[in-house]
Amino acid sequence: MKVDGRPMRTIWLDADGWGVDVIDQRWLPHEFRIVTLRTLAEAATAIRDMWVRGAPLIGVTAAYGVALAMRENPSDAHLDQAWATLHETRPTAINLRWALDAARARLRPLPPAARAAAAYAQAAEIAEEDVDINRAIGRNGLAIIRAIAARKAPGEPVNILTHCNAGWLATVDYGTATAPIYLAGEEGVPVHVFVDETRPRNQGASLTAWELLHNRTPSTLIVDNAGGHLMQHGRIDMVIVGTDRTTARGDVCNKIGTYLKALAARDNGVPFYVALPSPTIDWTVNDGVKEIPIEERSAEEVDFVQGLGADGKVSRVRVSPEGGRAANPAFDVTPARLVTGLITERGVAEASADGLRALFPERG
Amino acid sequence: MKVDGRPMRTIWLDADGWGVDVIDQRWLPHEFRIVTLRTLAEAATAIRDMWVRGAPLIGVTAAYGVALAMRENPSDAHLDQAWATLHETRPTAINLRWALDAARARLRPLPPAARAAAAYAQAAEIAEEDVDINRAIGRNGLAIIRAIAARKAPGEPVNILTHCNAGWLATVDYGTATAPIYLAGEEGVPVHVFVDETRPRNQGASLTAWELLHNRTPSTLIVDNAGGHLMQHGRIDMVIVGTDRTTARGDVCNKIGTYLKALAARDNGVPFYVALPSPTIDWTVNDGVKEIPIEERSAEEVDFVQGLGADGKVSRVRVSPEGGRAANPAFDVTPARLVTGLITERGVAEASADGLRALFPERG
Repeated sequence: MKVDGRPMRTIWLDADGWGVDVIDQRWLPHEFRIVTLRTLAEAATAIRDMWVRGAPLIGVTAAYGVALAMRENPSDAHLDQAWATLHETRPTAINLRWALDAARARLRPLPPAARAAAAYAQAAEIAEEDVDINRAIGRNGLAIIRAIAARKAPGEPVNILTHCNAGWLATVDYGTATAPIYLAGEEGVPVHVFVDETRPRNQGASLTAWELLHNRTPSTLIVDNAGGHLMQHGRIDMVIVGTDRTTARGDVCNKIGTYLKALAARDNGVPFYVALPSPTIDWTVNDGVKEIPIEERSAEEVDFVQGLGADGKVSRVRVSPEGGRAANPAFDVTPARLVTGLITERGVAEASADGLRALFPERG
Repeated sequence: MKVDGRPMRTIWLDADGWGVDVIDQRWLPHEFRIVTLRTLAEAATAIRDMWVRGAPLIGVTAAYGVALAMRENPSDAHLDQAWATLHETRPTAINLRWALDAARARLRPLPPAARAAAAYAQAAEIAEEDVDINRAIGRNGLAIIRAIAARKAPGEPVNILTHCNAGWLATVDYGTATAPIYLAGEEGVPVHVFVDETRPRNQGASLTAWELLHNRTPSTLIVDNAGGHLMQHGRIDMVIVGTDRTTARGDVCNKIGTYLKALAARDNGVPFYVALPSPTIDWTVNDGVKEIPIEERSAEEVDFVQGLGADGKVSRVRVSPEGGRAANPAFDVTPARLVTGLITERGVAEASADGLRALFPERG
């Protein structure tokens, strides 16, 4: 997407042809910093310390991390070392594991001298694939936005609520939930986005609000409490969110708070869509509420809020009383019955076992 | 209630017998400051700058503000001046207006020399009335908690979710939503409270969490996004919230986000109660969603979060990108159909026109 008019991705080759440039997202929305990764260790740090985040972007960064490692030393031992070093940065990230396995499988049979070039080529392929998938999600979602726009007065924007960051910053480009929104903008369909700030980590306030603002997509930040009220008053035409994991029957695991917005959408007749690349469908799970274990994260994320201080420095403040307890479940599950449709790269599926099987017949 | 074992109210006469002591709530939960108000001007500042907040406490503070004014100068002109000065501090606060009208009506017929004493007596009466009402709400709500406790294993706490601060800090003592909780504690019924932090102003994190912690009532702070997930997993037995205004048919206007919790409660079969003193029922309004105008507050409350910095000072940080837009509706309306019952000082009413009329037949 664009940052103040300049087209960008979240990861790209440096002008020198081999360094890997990424946006250091830890400083957003207050500082826009680009850093160049030049070693395996730097790539690992970028993933571990969340300079980059979002499953697709983590996968691509890992693939480039292997390429940097092969440039340093293309031996078998170093290839294994690269796999291990990068894997332990975010051991539960499925895309990371997938990208590393794919890299090792492709590089191992090659003579060491050919490995670096092959690794760069593979990383670029994975990046392009991600962009293609998101563009396809965007196209399928755009049809839904167009249909809503057609029922509104000409020129009146379609008001879309989103939660957390399923934006281009979480991917290589376009994002998942934001892809239909960005395509709408590119094709002149007027949209306006309500962005949930998404406590406790505020990915909405710091990432989604930032990327929409700098892409010049009209948007308004709201607290997580506000969406229900806006829906009651007809100010939201549709909801689009991303997902970390969708079950075979269409239950959607996503950032904590998603379920509350789905309930409000149902109560007010607002369509609730989930945008997802099909690899995030977990065909082995059905009942998401019962079967998906929810990560309990540190209470510190609830007790403290990070932001820009009056001194111009990014710091954090404590919002809770010293000595109190806090709980911090990171995700929740929205049951399929509350989901209007699943926007995938292949088309829009009904959120049901039948709906998903119809779109992915190879899954039987 | 108690602060670390010491019984306290939110407002009381100073040891000198005429100064008015209040907790300066702006510094909670980080600093516990007591200040003494000695002039009309100081009382007005305390209300205007939100050293004290919560409708009942504002009313009592205003009544004491009139008493301080009468001590300074008991003339008719100064009585009118006190009314005007205090009224303009929070012009939309109904309890404030009510307390000021009551004070003027009682004092005006008296000889000036008798006014100060009468004003102090009246302020004390209003304070006692508030405590009595809240204790009655507590007693009626406690019966509900006891019934839930009876269905649980002995000693297992009743888990109660609350939103915002309808606690003793908003009243003179006991609070409204918290009154049943505090009485349960006093009577040995085990309870545990999940406290919504309540963005944007974080009254849950800074006030409710503080008062429960220092009263030694078991509690856990959560972000506003988490309640639905906890209900899905059976971790919440009931919800109790307060309200700013309840309509004649039982629609409930309360802090933004209340509606989302009511939806989640309904979806998971969790009883959802609203605690309210009957004077906050607005018998002139029926459809709360359509008829109650919702205050839109400053975007700054969304863009900035206040807390305790690493330097030990209370300051604020910006969480959103510079130059972005934010919207900040302060309240929402929970339709009566989502409310299990209205806990008033007179009893528990079904949230309906019939239910309220049965409890308040004089409203016919």
